[in-house]
Amino acid sequence: MKYSVIAIGDELLIGQVTDTNSGWIARHLSPLGWEMQTVQVVADSPDAIEHAIDEAFAQSSVVLMTGGLGPTKDDITKPALCHYFGGEMVRDEQVARQVEWVVEQRHLKLNDYTRDQAIVPSSCRVIQNEVGTAPLMWFERDGKVLVSMPGVPFETQTMMQRAVIPQLMAHFHSDVTIEYRTMVVVGIIESLLAMQLDEFERSLPDNFHLAYLPQGGYMLLRLHGRHADAAVLHSQLERYMAQLHDILGDAIVSDDEKPLAAIVGQLLREKGLTLSTAESCTGGNIAHQITMVAGSSDYYKGSVVSYATAIKTDVLGVNQDDVDRYTVVSEPVARQMAAGVARVLGTDCSIATTGIAGPGGGDDVNPVGTVWMAVNVCGNIVTVKKHYPGTRDRVITRATTDSLLLLLNHLQGH
Amino acid sequence: MKYSVIAIGDELLIGQVTDTNSGWIARHLSPLGWEMQTVQVVADSPDAIEHAIDEAFAQSSVVLMTGGLGPTKDDITKPALCHYFGGEMVRDEQVARQVEWVVEQRHLKLNDYTRDQAIVPSSCRVIQNEVGTAPLMWFERDGKVLVSMPGVPFETQTMMQRAVIPQLMAHFHSDVTIEYRTMVVVGIIESLLAMQLDEFERSLPDNFHLAYLPQGGYMLLRLHGRHADAAVLHSQLERYMAQLHDILGDAIVSDDEKPLAAIVGQLLREKGLTLSTAESCTGGNIAHQITMVAGSSDYYKGSVVSYATAIKTDVLGVNQDDVDRYTVVSEPVARQMAAGVARVLGTDCSIATTGIAGPGGGDDVNPVGTVWMAVNVCGNIVTVKKHYPGTRDRVITRATTDSLLLLLNHLQGH
Repeated sequence: MKYSVIAIGDELLIGQVTDTNSGWIARHLSPLGWEMQTVQVVADSPDAIEHAIDEAFAQSSVVLMTGGLGPTKDDITKPALCHYFGGEMVRDEQVARQVEWVVEQRHLKLNDYTRDQAIVPSSCRVIQNEVGTAPLMWFERDGKVLVSMPGVPFETQTMMQRAVIPQLMAHFHSDVTIEYRTMVVVGIIESLLAMQLDEFERSLPDNFHLAYLPQGGYMLLRLHGRHADAAVLHSQLERYMAQLHDILGDAIVSDDEKPLAAIVGQLLREKGLTLSTAESCTGGNIAHQITMVAGSSDYYKGSVVSYATAIKTDVLGVNQDDVDRYTVVSEPVARQMAAGVARVLGTDCSIATTGIAGPGGGDDVNPVGTVWMAVNVCGNIVTVKKHYPGTRDRVITRATTDSLLLLLNHLQGH
Repeated sequence: MKYSVIAIGDELLIGQVTDTNSGWIARHLSPLGWEMQTVQVVADSPDAIEHAIDEAFAQSSVVLMTGGLGPTKDDITKPALCHYFGGEMVRDEQVARQVEWVVEQRHLKLNDYTRDQAIVPSSCRVIQNEVGTAPLMWFERDGKVLVSMPGVPFETQTMMQRAVIPQLMAHFHSDVTIEYRTMVVVGIIESLLAMQLDEFERSLPDNFHLAYLPQGGYMLLRLHGRHADAAVLHSQLERYMAQLHDILGDAIVSDDEKPLAAIVGQLLREKGLTLSTAESCTGGNIAHQITMVAGSSDYYKGSVVSYATAIKTDVLGVNQDDVDRYTVVSEPVARQMAAGVARVLGTDCSIATTGIAGPGGGDDVNPVGTVWMAVNVCGNIVTVKKHYPGTRDRVITRATTDSLLLLLNHLQGH
């Protein structure tokens, strides 16, 4: 089944909000064999919305529309849909009760703006929004379907899972199965990987496709197949996956797409090891990535974010003489931070970072972007120095990724 | 000037990569008076790319295209552009030298894949990519311009600033000025804000527009004007901004869009106060948000991420009896964490969080989503209990935002 997404909102076109809904929708519909044709981001304007619907219907049988349904005045989506699909604007009593209930639950007051959310085009079938006030609307025309949903990601995602996906599945049925695997590949750059896989890729039949998705420090490799017979497809996929493992070996650290922190976490769990972190320039981002993984409290004990130098010496026990002699961005300091945090927090493993994220603070010895990382596995410490060009954001992100890659590599060899 | 963006890549349509380039472009071109008409996200397919160009040119004089230029085989953008704009694929010697230089700088080997990056349509003018291997291409047709750029955000952003924006500005000139302000508004919900501003909004002339951008816990309020005369526009904008300040008072915590952590940081800097954090359920995310702000080391000293209970008692000095009596997710523990981290790290202010981010770990007393927050300003501690529905991600994000809002509020009253 071919579908398209329309994301509505001036705030998207001036870049103040990023559309994450279309990605979420794609990740949840492609495993069901649904193929996203396009995403269109358009203004809060009746003409733009109606033109986008024409475009989307020309390419797809289903259009999923997000946004343009908030309680404030700049929303014009519902009248535009009414104009497009016909009928008139009417009050839906069930929506009105739902709005009252949500408003009460949130200890808010019902006002004219929230009350207007119960007004919908008579040409739609309403799907109740169970987690917000803006109703979802299902329209049909010439055998095609458009579903209008709120723009708030939590509401869209919840209602897609509870209602929209099951109802679309019941309404249509697709005759092609899609199956794919997304591997996490480390320690090899894109062009070299492409050369290693050149023969494999040329040997793939037309119904299979390999894609390279660079992630900044590592790579996602997606093997994607389609076939009328799900069982045939599955056995083909298994065979090609085995071939990829033969070619790439240890470089494939996961057969499923997951964050590096989750891959590291799984390895720690398997080995029965605990982890702590001591972060200077990464400022808590390594801890954040690790603790975003559900169940991480099983192996992760905590972090000391030692932004001030005094915390490195007083709390982590870094030698003040070494700070004076080598500066705070140096191998000895990174090494002592890693050893210190494992001692203070009582863990088997640790990660430490010290560097200059910028834009200020650099000098000739340690220009902005210089980062020392230390990784400690049961007292065995390895260190790496990196220099990252670019913004503060990029230095923090890349140093976080590379620290996790360094621990992964050190744990694999352990 | 009207422009549109086309983002190319199967990886975008299956949701494995999020398009952040279009938002960045919008944020940098709208202050120059350029209006983004649409964003189209399309597949790595010649037909889809050519159709998207037709669509974009129908609405805009300029098309900015990102992606589809990597060294691996799934990229078909360049031949599609050559088919659309005419000419043939030719080797560009300057690009070839740039590719060789980048490959050498990164200590990589030149191979067939990187070498092919120097092949471009003869109908384009090449803009050298100074920070990567994929060249930028400038095409013209019927007075309209299309610029093809790489998809890697760092490369797109760098080259937009160094070359594409200046060259577009030189090529076109717009006769309407746009100016806008994006205020940060706290402590008031969208529908109530809309009611408070109803009269103000109705009094705005046609060339001004007010938009509400809910951020999950607070609001961005954007006042946007357009006028042929920049000086007239500016004085109008100043007058309406003053009116908004009269109506909303302290609820406007910033006249410019910036992260909450930056607003808190500015207030700490003005008051000469230092900050530390003690994070349990937020797992380092508060530290991360604070340290993403350049210059935060002036007031931020560090964090203890006390994921394990033992760290709360051993490092932060939380009373074990209170943990036993009230459980670890309780007001006394949050309060003692806030006091403890300020003492251990020697700061004036502190934030502490303890809660259940889920999906596991909840019980009847403290269901998943329960978070206690404590904020300490010079020994004066306030605490708040919240319950957040939704995913782990959402609990962490909302608890981070609300902790910063609590500190902001406490600092304002101090």
